Parts: sequence; structure tokens; C-alpha cells
Amino acid sequence: MPRVHVDLAERSYDIIIGAGVLESAAEHLRSIVAGRRLAVVTDAVVKQHYLPSMQSALDDISSRWDTYCIDGGESAKSFAGLESLLTQMLSDGVDRGSVLMAFGGGVVGDVGGFAAALLMRGIELIQVPTTLMSQVDSAVGGKNAINTSHGKNLVGSFLQPRIVLNDVSVLRSLPAGELRSGYGEIIKYGLLRGEQQFSWLEHNAHALLAHETEVLTEAVRMGCETKAQIVSEDERDHGKRALVNLGHTFAHAFETQAGFGAFPHGVAVAVGLIAACELSERSGACSTGLADRVRSHTHAVGLATDLPGLSQAVDWSALELHAHMAHDKKTVDGQINFVLLNEVGKPFVTKDISAEHVRESLVALGASSCK
Amino acid sequence: MPRVHVDLAERSYDIIIGAGVLESAAEHLRSIVAGRRLAVVTDAVVKQHYLPSMQSALDDISSRWDTYCIDGGESAKSFAGLESLLTQMLSDGVDRGSVLMAFGGGVVGDVGGFAAALLMRGIELIQVPTTLMSQVDSAVGGKNAINTSHGKNLVGSFLQPRIVLNDVSVLRSLPAGELRSGYGEIIKYGLLRGEQQFSWLEHNAHALLAHETEVLTEAVRMGCETKAQIVSEDERDHGKRALVNLGHTFAHAFETQAGFGAFPHGVAVAVGLIAACELSERSGACSTGLADRVRSHTHAVGLATDLPGLSQAVDWSALELHAHMAHDKKTVDGQINFVLLNEVGKPFVTKDISAEHVRESLVALGASSCK
Repeated sequence: MPRVHVDLAERSYDIIIGAGVLESAAEHLRSIVAGRRLAVVTDAVVKQHYLPSMQSALDDISSRWDTYCIDGGESAKSFAGLESLLTQMLSDGVDRGSVLMAFGGGVVGDVGGFAAALLMRGIELIQVPTTLMSQVDSAVGGKNAINTSHGKNLVGSFLQPRIVLNDVSVLRSLPAGELRSGYGEIIKYGLLRGEQQFSWLEHNAHALLAHETEVLTEAVRMGCETKAQIVSEDERDHGKRALVNLGHTFAHAFETQAGFGAFPHGVAVAVGLIAACELSERSGACSTGLADRVRSHTHAVGLATDLPGLSQAVDWSALELHAHMAHDKKTVDGQINFVLLNEVGKPFVTKDISAEHVRESLVALGASSCK
Repeated sequence: MPRVHVDLAERSYDIIIGAGVLESAAEHLRSIVAGRRLAVVTDAVVKQHYLPSMQSALDDISSRWDTYCIDGGESAKSFAGLESLLTQMLSDGVDRGSVLMAFGGGVVGDVGGFAAALLMRGIELIQVPTTLMSQVDSAVGGKNAINTSHGKNLVGSFLQPRIVLNDVSVLRSLPAGELRSGYGEIIKYGLLRGEQQFSWLEHNAHALLAHETEVLTEAVRMGCETKAQIVSEDERDHGKRALVNLGHTFAHAFETQAGFGAFPHGVAVAVGLIAACELSERSGACSTGLADRVRSHTHAVGLATDLPGLSQAVDWSALELHAHMAHDKKTVDGQINFVLLNEVGKPFVTKDISAEHVRESLVALGASSCK
């Protein structure tokens, strides 16, 4: 099975990718769990559909395992949700020798990962993500967080997992819209990585969205490998790790303007990627044509390609969107951090961007310029 | 001024110790704060009495500073207290470029340090502890935590500060009881460190408790240096760091039995140190006489030397105390981790201790053996 190594000195780990990883979980987890107690944080849907595949493996490798179901929705990423999970685990006697497995989508990975980071100041963590978005992005790299009334992911920590198990079989039952949303992040990794990878996506996206196992496996592998390379150079997000935010400065502004949850994150990311390409062209970083190329691919896979495509119900004011970017948590002293491309596979981070170019790029995506 | 270096690779930092450190804070903090925004977490008493000494330094080195007063009592170490502090800072616009200063006793250091660890997944931290206990122990080494209904410090994280400022002048106004309690931890460091340091304490304790600046400075320096050496070898508490728990396995059991807050932590630690010496003798780790020597010194400085001395109102059952130890958060699989001494300055960690010897040691301290 394909395996990606995340190189972080004593915090290094592997990501196992393929069909049937859950069934062979015992083989991958035995030396990590090593007969210890396991706390499996999951949600009701994942527990019902996918836990049975792993049940005998968990019986086999752990002294005892219990499941902790949280709500899979964004609202579970709260102080109250975190406190309730931690208190329940402590009350059951989960201790510093126990291992926490986060088994589910992005919310489970975030809340489970955060709980593992804080319980007894940190217990070991295993990530078993079950959505395309979490397999390729949120379960890799050790970030976790909850939301506050002042914004998403403003309170959190870093805890690298001991291993990530990416079973692409579970993606087969993912609703088409969720798979497509996750694909938004895969486009991002193609653009970050290089011409070969991006044109491979252009040729294989339809097979991927038709759940073809080999294509899914390769796309997840490419995404994980790209993220692993970046994270291993800047684990704590002091510089280069900003590259994985390609498209996200825009996407977060779209989500803030529309209200979180108005459309899936990955759909906003896809439009954000087109915006980042528009800005790269307008600021002279890359030659004309990149934005159109990304727009065509995004359109071909059925993702929105502009702001009205994200939502007709939102007032897409370029000025207001720009103001949201200036208040993003990544912004320090009002200087917005943009990730741009010189060409496919040549991303860079810059603060030196004119407000005019930002607004023009937004207008090119259908934002109104007049207020 | 004396300075202790905590050697932790890229997380290394200095502890500055002496009288008047607050007045000269600008000199120590300028390169760290570097004109950025500062969030000062403190309590009302510290703010009133000691903040004025640092006010002009803070004006001088930061672009803006605000104070966040929390309750200085143990009840502030809660999820609710942490959430309220984080939300207030976010609402004021504290961002990832800001620096958090924890200015107060152990509770302020814990809650402030934890908030710094979690805000935007970690902002920089400065510790300015104002009690003997926090100067010599809790502000050094990067641990922070809050309490849960299942026990103290069960939820927390590690965040090393950029610097620790230990102004011994502020200890002059510390109530005698609090100074004496902090001295319990200093006895611990003397025992961990060596014959020279422990006998120095035997000769100088009265001057220390009379607030003599030079003696206070040297005692705090010795404690910090001892802890720094241990922490630098085992930052994440996987082995050697357990040594700083000398006396604490017992002390936590005393506190659990009596209910937290029945007596100051350091007073329980002093009795716990005598218990650890009794156990060292009984299990053959050290020669007879060590427990009596520590008991004499503890008595000489006016600290309790046995369980009835801690409280007359508690049922000190050896069996119940032993059961508490088996449920301590440091205990994994029911195997209690004891720190014993071969002699002064020669501590070691062991799980290989007979229940009989533990109970005999407790009885030697006045516990009842019959139930």
C-alpha cells in the first residue's frame, strides 16, 4: 500500500493510503497501541458504517477500547464540546498511557486531536479520517482547533499523530457533493505541486469523482505527500507552511461574508484558487491563462467557478470581502498574507500586493465593485 | 543579576533572579516584545501592588498593553475561566503576533500560560511569577493546566516561556504562611540537589524566611537551576522529570484525602518529603537518619512534620491514602511511581516498592493503620 512519510524528527510518522486499510488496521497499529487502552472518538454515522470493519483489529491490539461519539457538525468544535469529551474520558479512567483514535471527518479529527493534546498534557493520537477533505488535508500536519464567537479555529494546538490511516474505500459511500468539496483541496495540492500533477488531475478527475480506487489512492497520496513536504519544513507555521493556504485567504473571506456553512469549505477553496490565480496574473507574478485553466478544470468537475456560483443570496461586495481578509487570523498588523503562483508548482507567499489588484480579482469573480 | 539558563534547543530561555527585576524589566524584555502588543494576565492584588513598578517598562517596549484580571484562586483554573480569558483577548484583537505576560502566582501562571498555548495555536509567553512557589517551581519548565471535577491539573499543555523574571523584592510582602509554603518546594530542591545545597538551607532558612534579599535570591536561583537541569533532560515528562515530584506522590494523596485547599500545597509537600525519606529508609534505599534530618529542618522553619500537624480534622487512614496514590494521574496501570533518595542529591524513580513499606511510612507520619 502507498505510504507517505512525514519527516518531523522524533515526531515523524507515516500515512498509509489505500483500499481496505481499516480491515488491515491491526497490522499498522499493533506496535503503536501495544496492548494499551484506546479511546475512539467518532460520530454516530461513522460508528455505524465503518467501525465494524475495524472492530476485530481493535479487540486484537488493545487492552480495552471505548467509543466516544461527538456530533460531526461544526458546532461540536466548541469549548463545551471539548470539555464534555475530556470530562467523559477522565470519568472513564482514560489515563496518560491511553491512546486516542480520531475516527471520522474534519470535526472529529479537530476535536479528537485537541482532546488528545490536552488530556494529561498530551496522550498519543491516531488519525483515521473518513472524508476526502480530512484524508488529504486536516488529518495531516498536526493542527487541531475549536471555534469561538470571534471566528473559526482561533483556539487550538499542534499534536502530530503517531500514524494516519487513509482508507479510500470509505470514500465510496461519501455523498457526491462532499467528495467534490474535498476535491477542491486536491486541486490546491496539484497547483502547489507541479505541472505533472496538475495535468494528471485534469485527466483523471472524472474517474476520481466516479470513486475509482486507484485514482482516489493516487490523488490522496499526492495531496498527502505535498502537504507532508511543506509541513516537515515548517511544522509550527512560521513561514513556508503558509503555502498550504493557497486560495484560503480568499475562501475564508467568502465564508465569512456568506456565514459559515452556506456552502462547503472545499467549494469555497476552489473559487479561492481561481481568485489567487487572477491575483497572480494581475500582480504580474505569472503569465495570463492560469486563472482560465483552473477555472476550466473547476467547471469540468462541477464545482462553482465564481461568487454567484457559490451563492446567489449573498451580497458579494469586493470592499467587504477585502476587509474580511484584513481581519483574518493569519493577518498581522493588517498586512494580508497572500499565496500566489509564478506558475503551476511555483507558489510563494507575499504581503506586497496592491489593494487595487485584490479588488480587481474579486470583481473578476463576480464581486460588485461599487460599495 | 543571577541568571539561570534553561537549555531546550530552540526553546531555550533565561530566568532572571534578583531584587528590582521588575524595575529593570524593559532591559530584559525589549528584544522579546520588540514593539509588539502585550496582553498582561494578572490578578487584582498583583495589579494593584506590583504593576506600577513595571508600567513604564511596558509603555516603553510594547505598541500597546492591556491587563486581563483573573481570580487568583484555584477556582479560576477551570474551562469556564480559560474560555472567558481567551474570548476576552480575541474580542480585544489580541493576535498571533501578540505576547502574553503571566504576572502573578501559580494560578495566573497556569491559566495565562495555557491561554498563550492555545490562542491561535500558541503565542509567545513571558512568565513574571510573584510568589516563592511559582518563582521556584511552577513558572519554570513550561507546564500549565486547569482542573476538572476528576482532579487537579488533568487538562493542560506545555509551552515554554521566552523568559522568566523572578523579582525577589515582591516576596517581601508575601504573607509569612505563603513564603513558608513556597519554602517546602525549596527543601525539595535542596534534597534533589546535594549535600552542599541542603546544608546551606539548614543554615540559611531563617534568614530566608526573614526576607533577606541575598538569601532569597540564592535559594530561588538554586531551585530554578535544579529544576532547569532536570527539565532540560526531559522536557515532556517521559522519565527523569518525575524527579521534581519528590514528596509529591504523598503530598497529592494528603491533599486528596483532606480536600484541596485544606492546607497550602507547599506545606503538604514538606510532609510528603519526610514520607519519601521514611520510605527510602524502609525500602533500604538510604541509611537511617535522613527522615529525621529532614523532619528537624522542617520543624525548625515552622512547617508541619506529620499528618496531624497538617490537619487535626482529617481521618488519616493509611489504607485510604495508599488508594489515592494508586489513582494519581502519574500512576499508569496501578503502578505507583515513587521518587526516593539514596542520599541527599541522589534521587531515583521506582515502581518497585512494597505496599507494606508505603503504609509503614504513612503510619510513621501519624496515619492510622487499622482501616
